[in-house]
Amino acid sequence: MTLKLVIGNKNYSSWSMRPWLALRGCDIAFEEIVVPLYTDDPADKARIVSHSPAGKVPILVDGVITAWDSLAIIEYLAERFPQAGLWPSEPGARAHARSISAEMHSGFPALRNECPMNLHRPVRPVELSADAKANIARIEEIWRDCRVRYGGPFLFGRFGAADAMFAPVVTRLHTFAVPVAAETRAYMDTMMALPAFAAWVKDGLAEDWIIDRVEKV
Amino acid sequence: MTLKLVIGNKNYSSWSMRPWLALRGCDIAFEEIVVPLYTDDPADKARIVSHSPAGKVPILVDGVITAWDSLAIIEYLAERFPQAGLWPSEPGARAHARSISAEMHSGFPALRNECPMNLHRPVRPVELSADAKANIARIEEIWRDCRVRYGGPFLFGRFGAADAMFAPVVTRLHTFAVPVAAETRAYMDTMMALPAFAAWVKDGLAEDWIIDRVEKV
Repeated sequence: MTLKLVIGNKNYSSWSMRPWLALRGCDIAFEEIVVPLYTDDPADKARIVSHSPAGKVPILVDGVITAWDSLAIIEYLAERFPQAGLWPSEPGARAHARSISAEMHSGFPALRNECPMNLHRPVRPVELSADAKANIARIEEIWRDCRVRYGGPFLFGRFGAADAMFAPVVTRLHTFAVPVAAETRAYMDTMMALPAFAAWVKDGLAEDWIIDRVEKV
Repeated sequence: MTLKLVIGNKNYSSWSMRPWLALRGCDIAFEEIVVPLYTDDPADKARIVSHSPAGKVPILVDGVITAWDSLAIIEYLAERFPQAGLWPSEPGARAHARSISAEMHSGFPALRNECPMNLHRPVRPVELSADAKANIARIEEIWRDCRVRYGGPFLFGRFGAADAMFAPVVTRLHTFAVPVAAETRAYMDTMMALPAFAAWVKDGLAEDWIIDRVEKV
Protein backbone atom coordinates (compact mmCIF):
# COMPACT_ATOMS: atom_id res chain seq x y z
CA MET A 1 0.00 0.00 0.00
CA THR A 2 1.43 3.37 -1.02
CA LEU A 3 1.96 6.05 1.60
CA LYS A 4 -0.17 9.13 0.93
CA LEU A 5 0.79 12.63 2.04
CA VAL A 6 -1.93 15.30 1.97
CA ILE A 7 -0.38 18.75 1.63
CA GLY A 8 -1.34 22.35 0.88
CA ASN A 9 -0.07 24.65 -1.86
CA LYS A 10 3.64 24.15 -2.31
CA ASN A 11 4.16 27.88 -2.78
CA TYR A 12 2.82 28.75 0.66
CA SER A 13 2.47 25.73 2.95
CA SER A 14 5.57 25.65 5.10
CA TRP A 15 4.18 22.91 7.34
CA SER A 16 3.56 20.72 4.29
CA MET A 17 7.06 21.23 2.97
CA ARG A 18 8.65 19.61 6.02
CA PRO A 19 7.40 16.00 5.82
CA TRP A 20 7.34 16.11 2.00
CA LEU A 21 11.03 17.01 2.00
CA ALA A 22 11.78 14.39 4.67
CA LEU A 23 10.15 11.74 2.47
CA ARG A 24 11.62 12.83 -0.86
CA GLY A 25 15.02 13.75 0.57
CA CYS A 26 15.32 10.29 2.18
CA ASP A 27 14.03 8.44 -0.92
CA ILE A 28 10.85 7.08 0.66
CA ALA A 29 8.20 6.45 -2.02
CA PHE A 30 4.83 8.19 -1.53
CA GLU A 31 1.86 9.65 -3.35
CA GLU A 32 1.08 13.33 -2.80
CA ILE A 33 -2.41 14.82 -2.62
CA VAL A 34 -2.38 18.61 -2.98
CA VAL A 35 -5.35 20.54 -1.57
CA PRO A 36 -5.19 24.32 -2.09
CA LEU A 37 -5.59 26.26 1.18
CA TYR A 38 -7.82 29.25 2.00
CA THR A 39 -9.92 28.95 -1.15
CA ASP A 40 -13.59 29.95 -1.38
CA ASP A 41 -14.55 26.35 -2.12
CA PRO A 42 -15.77 24.56 1.04
CA ALA A 43 -15.05 21.25 -0.71
CA ASP A 44 -11.33 21.94 -0.27
CA LYS A 45 -11.65 22.18 3.52
CA ALA A 46 -13.91 19.13 3.51
CA ARG A 47 -11.24 17.15 1.66
CA ILE A 48 -8.73 17.96 4.40
CA VAL A 49 -11.15 17.09 7.22
CA SER A 50 -11.98 13.81 5.46
CA HIS A 51 -8.36 12.76 6.05
CA SER A 52 -7.87 14.14 9.59
CA PRO A 53 -10.20 15.57 12.25
CA ALA A 54 -7.63 18.29 13.01
CA GLY A 55 -8.57 19.77 9.62
CA LYS A 56 -5.03 20.83 8.86
CA VAL A 57 -2.34 19.72 6.44
CA PRO A 58 0.02 17.91 6.35
CA ILE A 59 -1.57 14.50 6.89
CA LEU A 60 0.08 11.13 6.31
CA VAL A 61 -2.06 8.10 5.50
CA ASP A 62 -0.41 4.68 5.68
CA GLY A 63 -3.14 2.09 5.16
CA VAL A 64 -5.36 2.24 8.25
CA ILE A 65 -2.96 4.52 10.12
CA THR A 66 -3.23 8.31 9.97
CA ALA A 67 -0.71 10.76 11.39
CA TRP A 68 -1.01 14.51 11.23
CA ASP A 69 1.20 17.47 12.08
CA SER A 70 4.67 17.71 10.57
CA LEU A 71 6.58 16.52 13.63
CA ALA A 72 4.30 13.57 14.41
CA ILE A 73 4.52 12.50 10.76
CA ILE A 74 8.31 12.64 10.91
CA GLU A 75 8.41 10.56 14.11
CA TYR A 76 6.09 8.04 12.45
CA LEU A 77 8.32 7.85 9.36
CA ALA A 78 11.47 7.52 11.49
CA GLU A 79 9.99 4.43 13.17
CA ARG A 80 8.50 2.99 9.99
CA PHE A 81 11.64 3.46 7.86
CA PRO A 82 14.59 3.17 10.26
CA GLN A 83 17.00 2.65 7.38
CA ALA A 84 16.14 6.12 6.01
CA GLY A 85 18.17 7.76 8.79
CA LEU A 86 15.74 10.60 9.46
CA TRP A 87 17.22 11.06 12.93
CA PRO A 88 20.95 10.67 13.71
CA SER A 89 21.84 7.21 15.00
CA GLU A 90 23.92 8.42 17.98
CA PRO A 91 21.60 9.09 20.99
CA GLY A 92 23.11 12.48 21.92
CA ALA A 93 22.92 13.76 18.35
CA ARG A 94 19.39 12.37 18.07
CA ALA A 95 18.33 14.22 21.25
CA HIS A 96 19.92 17.36 19.79
CA ALA A 97 18.14 16.95 16.45
CA ARG A 98 14.81 16.44 18.18
CA SER A 99 15.40 19.44 20.47
CA ILE A 100 16.04 21.90 17.66
CA SER A 101 13.20 20.40 15.59
CA ALA A 102 10.80 20.87 18.50
CA GLU A 103 12.18 24.38 19.08
CA MET A 104 11.30 25.15 15.43
CA HIS A 105 7.93 23.43 15.73
CA SER A 106 6.64 25.59 18.58
CA GLY A 107 8.80 28.68 18.27
CA PHE A 108 9.99 31.65 16.23
CA PRO A 109 6.50 33.22 15.87
CA ALA A 110 7.77 36.69 14.93
CA LEU A 111 9.81 35.37 12.00
CA ARG A 112 6.92 33.20 10.87
CA ASN A 113 4.44 36.10 11.00
CA GLU A 114 6.67 38.69 9.38
CA CYS A 115 8.22 36.48 6.70
CA PRO A 116 5.60 33.96 5.58
CA MET A 117 6.76 31.33 3.11
CA ASN A 118 5.92 32.55 -0.39
CA LEU A 119 8.21 31.06 -3.01
CA HIS A 120 7.08 33.25 -5.91
CA ARG A 121 7.50 36.53 -4.00
CA PRO A 122 10.24 38.68 -5.56
CA VAL A 123 13.39 38.64 -3.43
CA ARG A 124 13.44 41.89 -1.46
CA PRO A 125 14.07 42.94 2.13
CA VAL A 126 11.43 43.90 4.67
CA GLU A 127 11.67 45.80 7.95
CA LEU A 128 11.97 43.24 10.75
CA SER A 129 10.95 43.61 14.39
CA ALA A 130 13.44 43.08 17.22
CA ASP A 131 11.69 39.79 18.00
CA ALA A 132 12.11 38.56 14.42
CA LYS A 133 15.78 39.55 14.48
CA ALA A 134 16.23 37.63 17.74
CA ASN A 135 14.54 34.61 16.13
CA ILE A 136 16.96 34.80 13.20
CA ALA A 137 19.99 35.15 15.49
CA ARG A 138 18.93 32.03 17.40
CA ILE A 139 18.39 30.09 14.14
CA GLU A 140 21.82 31.11 12.86
CA GLU A 141 23.30 29.93 16.18
CA ILE A 142 21.47 26.57 15.91
CA TRP A 143 22.71 25.97 12.36
CA ARG A 144 26.28 27.08 13.11
CA ASP A 145 26.50 24.95 16.25
CA CYS A 146 25.22 21.83 14.45
CA ARG A 147 27.42 22.19 11.39
CA VAL A 148 30.54 22.81 13.49
CA ARG A 149 29.75 19.97 15.86
CA TYR A 150 28.71 17.34 13.31
CA GLY A 151 30.84 18.47 10.36
CA GLY A 152 28.15 19.58 7.88
CA PRO A 153 27.18 20.14 5.14
CA PHE A 154 23.69 19.46 6.57
CA LEU A 155 22.84 19.95 10.26
CA PHE A 156 23.81 16.43 11.31
CA GLY A 157 26.12 15.45 8.46
CA ARG A 158 23.79 14.00 5.84
CA PHE A 159 20.30 15.33 5.11
CA GLY A 160 17.68 14.39 7.72
CA ALA A 161 14.55 15.37 9.62
CA ALA A 162 16.06 18.42 11.33
CA ASP A 163 16.99 19.89 7.95
CA ALA A 164 13.44 19.22 6.74
CA MET A 165 12.03 21.03 9.79
CA PHE A 166 14.12 24.13 9.04
CA ALA A 167 13.66 24.08 5.23
CA PRO A 168 10.90 26.70 5.12
CA VAL A 169 13.15 29.05 7.11
CA VAL A 170 15.73 28.72 4.37
CA THR A 171 13.17 29.99 1.85
CA ARG A 172 12.10 32.82 4.19
CA LEU A 173 15.62 34.10 4.77
CA HIS A 174 16.21 33.94 1.01
CA THR A 175 12.94 35.53 -0.14
CA PHE A 176 13.07 38.34 2.40
CA ALA A 177 16.78 38.98 1.65
CA VAL A 178 17.67 38.76 5.32
CA PRO A 179 21.32 39.69 6.00
CA VAL A 180 22.98 36.54 7.37
CA ALA A 181 26.47 35.26 8.15
CA ALA A 182 28.45 33.59 5.37
CA GLU A 183 28.16 30.22 7.12
CA THR A 184 24.38 30.64 7.27
CA ARG A 185 24.27 31.39 3.56
CA ALA A 186 26.44 28.32 2.92
CA TYR A 187 23.89 26.13 4.69
CA MET A 188 21.04 27.79 2.76
CA ASP A 189 22.88 27.11 -0.51
CA THR A 190 23.41 23.47 0.51
CA MET A 191 19.70 23.09 1.21
CA MET A 192 18.55 24.87 -1.95
CA ALA A 193 20.82 22.65 -4.06
CA LEU A 194 19.27 19.47 -2.64
CA PRO A 195 17.28 17.89 -5.52
CA ALA A 196 14.22 17.34 -3.31
CA PHE A 197 14.26 21.01 -2.22
CA ALA A 198 14.62 22.21 -5.80
CA ALA A 199 11.77 19.93 -6.90
CA TRP A 200 9.44 21.37 -4.24
CA VAL A 201 10.29 24.95 -5.25
CA LYS A 202 9.79 24.18 -8.95
CA ASP A 203 6.34 22.71 -8.23
CA GLY A 204 5.45 25.68 -6.01
CA LEU A 205 6.41 28.21 -8.68
CA ALA A 206 4.23 26.37 -11.22
CA GLU A 207 1.08 26.81 -9.08
CA ASP A 208 -1.31 29.64 -9.89
CA TRP A 209 -3.31 29.69 -6.66
CA ILE A 210 -3.00 33.02 -4.82
CA ILE A 211 -3.57 33.65 -1.10
CA ASP A 212 -4.12 37.40 -0.98
CA ARG A 213 -3.18 38.10 2.62
CA VAL A 214 0.24 36.49 2.21
CA GLU A 215 0.93 38.54 -0.91
CA LYS A 216 0.64 41.76 1.09
CA VAL A 217 3.84 41.06 3.03
CA MET B 1 23.78 9.13 37.09
CA THR B 2 20.50 10.81 38.05
CA LEU B 3 18.39 12.45 35.37
CA LYS B 4 18.02 16.19 35.95
CA LEU B 5 15.02 18.22 34.78
CA VAL B 6 15.38 22.01 34.78
CA ILE B 7 11.96 23.65 35.07
CA GLY B 8 10.35 27.03 35.73
CA ASN B 9 7.87 28.01 38.45
CA LYS B 10 5.36 25.24 38.93
CA ASN B 11 2.55 27.77 39.34
CA TYR B 12 3.02 29.23 35.87
CA SER B 13 5.26 27.10 33.64
CA SER B 14 2.96 24.99 31.51
CA TRP B 15 5.82 23.75 29.31
CA SER B 16 7.70 22.56 32.40
CA MET B 17 4.70 20.70 33.73
CA ARG B 18 4.54 18.38 30.72
CA PRO B 19 7.84 16.44 30.99
CA TRP B 20 7.77 16.64 34.81
CA LEU B 21 4.39 14.94 34.81
CA ALA B 22 5.52 12.41 32.20
CA LEU B 23 8.46 11.48 34.45
CA ARG B 24 6.63 11.43 37.77
CA GLY B 25 3.44 9.90 36.34
CA CYS B 26 5.46 7.04 34.81
CA ASP B 27 7.61 6.51 37.94
CA ILE B 28 10.93 7.51 36.35
CA ALA B 29 13.35 8.81 39.02
CA PHE B 30 14.79 12.31 38.47
CA GLU B 31 16.09 15.36 40.24
CA GLU B 32 14.31 18.67 39.62
CA ILE B 33 16.01 22.05 39.39
CA VAL B 34 13.53 24.92 39.68
CA VAL B 35 14.56 28.30 38.21
CA PRO B 36 11.98 31.07 38.66
CA LEU B 37 11.06 32.74 35.35
CA TYR B 38 10.83 36.45 34.46
CA THR B 39 12.60 37.64 37.61
CA ASP B 40 14.75 40.78 37.79
CA ASP B 41 17.81 38.68 38.60
CA PRO B 42 19.93 38.05 35.47
CA ALA B 43 21.50 35.08 37.29
CA ASP B 44 18.23 33.18 36.84
CA LYS B 45 18.34 33.53 33.05
CA ALA B 46 22.06 32.66 33.12
CA ARG B 47 21.27 29.45 35.01
CA ILE B 48 18.86 28.40 32.27
CA VAL B 49 21.29 29.24 29.45
CA SER B 50 24.03 27.31 31.28
CA HIS B 51 21.96 24.17 30.72
CA SER B 52 20.70 24.82 27.16
CA PRO B 53 21.58 27.36 24.44
CA ALA B 54 17.88 27.75 23.66
CA GLY B 55 17.59 29.57 27.00
CA LYS B 56 14.20 28.10 27.76
CA VAL B 57 12.85 25.57 30.23
CA PRO B 58 12.22 22.65 30.37
CA ILE B 59 15.64 21.06 29.87
CA LEU B 60 16.57 17.45 30.54
CA VAL B 61 20.16 16.54 31.39
CA ASP B 62 21.11 12.85 31.28
CA GLY B 63 24.86 12.66 31.86
CA VAL B 64 26.49 14.15 28.74
CA ILE B 65 23.19 14.29 26.83
CA THR B 66 20.94 17.37 26.91
CA ALA B 67 17.45 17.59 25.46
CA TRP B 68 15.23 20.63 25.54
CA ASP B 69 11.64 21.45 24.64
CA SER B 70 8.83 19.42 26.19
CA LEU B 71 8.17 17.22 23.17
CA ALA B 72 11.83 16.42 22.42
CA ILE B 73 12.32 15.53 26.09
CA ILE B 74 9.34 13.19 25.98
CA GLU B 75 10.64 11.48 22.81
CA TYR B 76 14.03 11.08 24.50
CA LEU B 77 12.42 9.56 27.60
CA ALA B 78 10.26 7.23 25.52
CA GLU B 79 13.39 5.80 23.88
CA ARG B 80 15.44 5.74 27.08
CA PHE B 81 12.73 4.10 29.22
CA PRO B 82 10.69 1.92 26.85
CA GLN B 83 9.15 0.02 29.77
CA ALA B 84 7.55 3.26 31.06
CA GLY B 85 4.97 3.14 28.26
CA LEU B 86 4.99 6.86 27.51
CA TRP B 87 3.58 6.19 24.05
CA PRO B 88 1.01 3.46 23.30
CA SER B 89 2.57 0.22 22.09
CA GLU B 90 0.23 -0.26 19.10
CA PRO B 91 1.57 1.69 16.05
CA GLY B 92 -1.76 3.27 15.06
CA ALA B 93 -2.47 4.43 18.61
CA ARG B 94 1.12 5.67 18.90
CA ALA B 95 0.76 7.72 15.68
CA HIS B 96 -2.50 9.10 17.08
CA ALA B 97 -0.90 10.00 20.42
CA ARG B 98 1.98 11.75 18.68
CA SER B 99 -0.39 13.60 16.32
CA ILE B 100 -2.50 15.12 19.10
CA SER B 101 0.62 15.84 21.17
CA ALA B 102 2.17 17.70 18.24
CA GLU B 103 -1.15 19.48 17.59
CA MET B 104 -1.01 20.70 21.21
CA HIS B 105 2.68 21.56 20.94
CA SER B 106 2.29 23.99 18.02
CA GLY B 107 -1.35 24.96 18.30
CA PHE B 108 -4.20 26.49 20.30
CA PRO B 109 -2.56 29.93 20.58
CA ALA B 110 -5.78 31.77 21.47
CA LEU B 111 -6.50 29.51 24.44
CA ARG B 112 -2.91 29.76 25.59
CA ASN B 113 -2.91 33.57 25.39
CA GLU B 114 -6.28 34.12 26.98
CA CYS B 115 -6.06 31.49 29.71
CA PRO B 116 -2.42 31.30 30.86
CA MET B 117 -1.63 28.58 33.39
CA ASN B 118 -1.81 30.13 36.86
CA LEU B 119 -2.60 27.56 39.53
CA HIS B 120 -3.19 30.02 42.37
CA ARG B 121 -5.62 32.21 40.40
CA PRO B 122 -9.11 32.11 41.93
CA VAL B 123 -11.47 30.01 39.82
CA ARG B 124 -13.59 32.41 37.80
CA PRO B 125 -14.72 32.72 34.18
CA VAL B 126 -13.32 35.11 31.60
CA GLU B 127 -14.70 36.35 28.29
CA LEU B 128 -13.24 34.13 25.54
CA SER B 129 -12.68 35.00 21.89
CA ALA B 130 -14.21 32.94 19.10
CA ASP B 131 -10.74 31.55 18.37
CA ALA B 132 -10.29 30.41 21.97
CA LYS B 133 -13.74 28.79 21.92
CA ALA B 134 -12.81 26.97 18.70
CA ASN B 135 -9.58 25.79 20.36
CA ILE B 136 -11.57 24.43 23.29
CA ALA B 137 -14.09 22.70 21.04
CA ARG B 138 -11.25 20.96 19.19
CA ILE B 139 -9.61 19.90 22.46
CA GLU B 140 -12.90 18.48 23.75
CA GLU B 141 -13.23 16.57 20.47
CA ILE B 142 -9.67 15.19 20.80
CA TRP B 143 -10.24 14.01 24.35
CA ARG B 144 -13.68 12.52 23.61
CA ASP B 145 -12.44 10.70 20.52
CA CYS B 146 -9.46 9.18 22.37
CA ARG B 147 -11.38 8.09 25.45
CA VAL B 148 -14.16 6.51 23.36
CA ARG B 149 -11.70 4.80 21.03
CA TYR B 150 -9.23 3.52 23.63
CA GLY B 151 -11.60 3.05 26.56
CA GLY B 152 -10.29 5.71 28.99
CA PRO B 153 -9.94 6.81 31.72
CA PHE B 154 -6.82 8.52 30.27
CA LEU B 155 -6.48 9.37 26.58
CA PHE B 156 -4.91 6.05 25.61
CA GLY B 157 -6.05 3.85 28.49
CA ARG B 158 -3.37 4.31 31.12
CA PHE B 159 -1.58 7.61 31.80
CA GLY B 160 1.05 8.52 29.19
CA ALA B 161 2.82 11.25 27.24
CA ALA B 162 -0.31 12.57 25.48
CA ASP B 163 -1.99 13.16 28.85
CA ALA B 164 1.14 14.96 30.05
CA MET B 165 1.07 17.20 26.95
CA PHE B 166 -2.54 18.22 27.65
CA ALA B 167 -2.18 18.55 31.45
CA PRO B 168 -1.77 22.35 31.50
CA VAL B 169 -4.99 22.63 29.47
CA VAL B 170 -6.78 20.76 32.24
CA THR B 171 -5.66 23.44 34.71
CA ARG B 172 -6.65 26.24 32.32
CA LEU B 173 -10.17 24.93 31.73
CA HIS B 174 -10.55 24.50 35.49
CA THR B 175 -9.09 27.86 36.60
CA PHE B 176 -10.99 29.86 34.01
CA ALA B 177 -14.23 27.96 34.76
CA VAL B 178 -14.74 27.15 31.10
CA PRO B 179 -18.11 25.48 30.43
CA VAL B 180 -17.34 21.99 29.13
CA ALA B 181 -19.17 18.73 28.41
CA ALA B 182 -19.61 16.24 31.26
CA GLU B 183 -17.20 13.82 29.55
CA THR B 184 -14.58 16.58 29.36
CA ARG B 185 -15.01 17.29 33.07
CA ALA B 186 -14.69 13.56 33.79
CA TYR B 187 -11.30 13.51 32.04
CA MET B 188 -10.23 16.66 33.91
CA ASP B 189 -11.20 15.02 37.21
CA THR B 190 -9.24 11.88 36.27
CA MET B 191 -6.17 13.97 35.55
CA MET B 192 -6.47 16.14 38.66
CA ALA B 193 -6.77 13.02 40.83
CA LEU B 194 -3.53 11.57 39.46
CA PRO B 195 -1.01 11.72 42.36
CA ALA B 196 1.70 13.23 40.14
CA PHE B 197 -0.71 15.97 38.98
CA ALA B 198 -1.78 16.74 42.53
CA ALA B 199 1.86 16.86 43.66
CA TRP B 200 2.72 19.41 40.96
CA VAL B 201 -0.25 21.61 41.90
CA LYS B 202 0.60 21.42 45.61
CA ASP B 203 4.18 22.52 44.90
CA GLY B 204 2.96 25.32 42.62
CA LEU B 205 0.57 26.68 45.24
CA ALA B 206 3.40 26.73 47.79
CA GLU B 207 5.53 29.06 45.62
CA ASP B 208 5.52 32.78 46.38
CA TRP B 209 7.06 34.06 43.13
CA ILE B 210 4.68 36.35 41.23
CA ILE B 211 4.72 37.12 37.49
CA ASP B 212 2.73 40.34 37.29
CA ARG B 213 1.58 40.18 33.68
CA VAL B 214 0.01 36.76 34.15
CA GLU B 215 -1.86 37.95 37.23
CA LYS B 216 -3.72 40.54 35.14
CA VAL B 217 -5.70 37.90 33.25
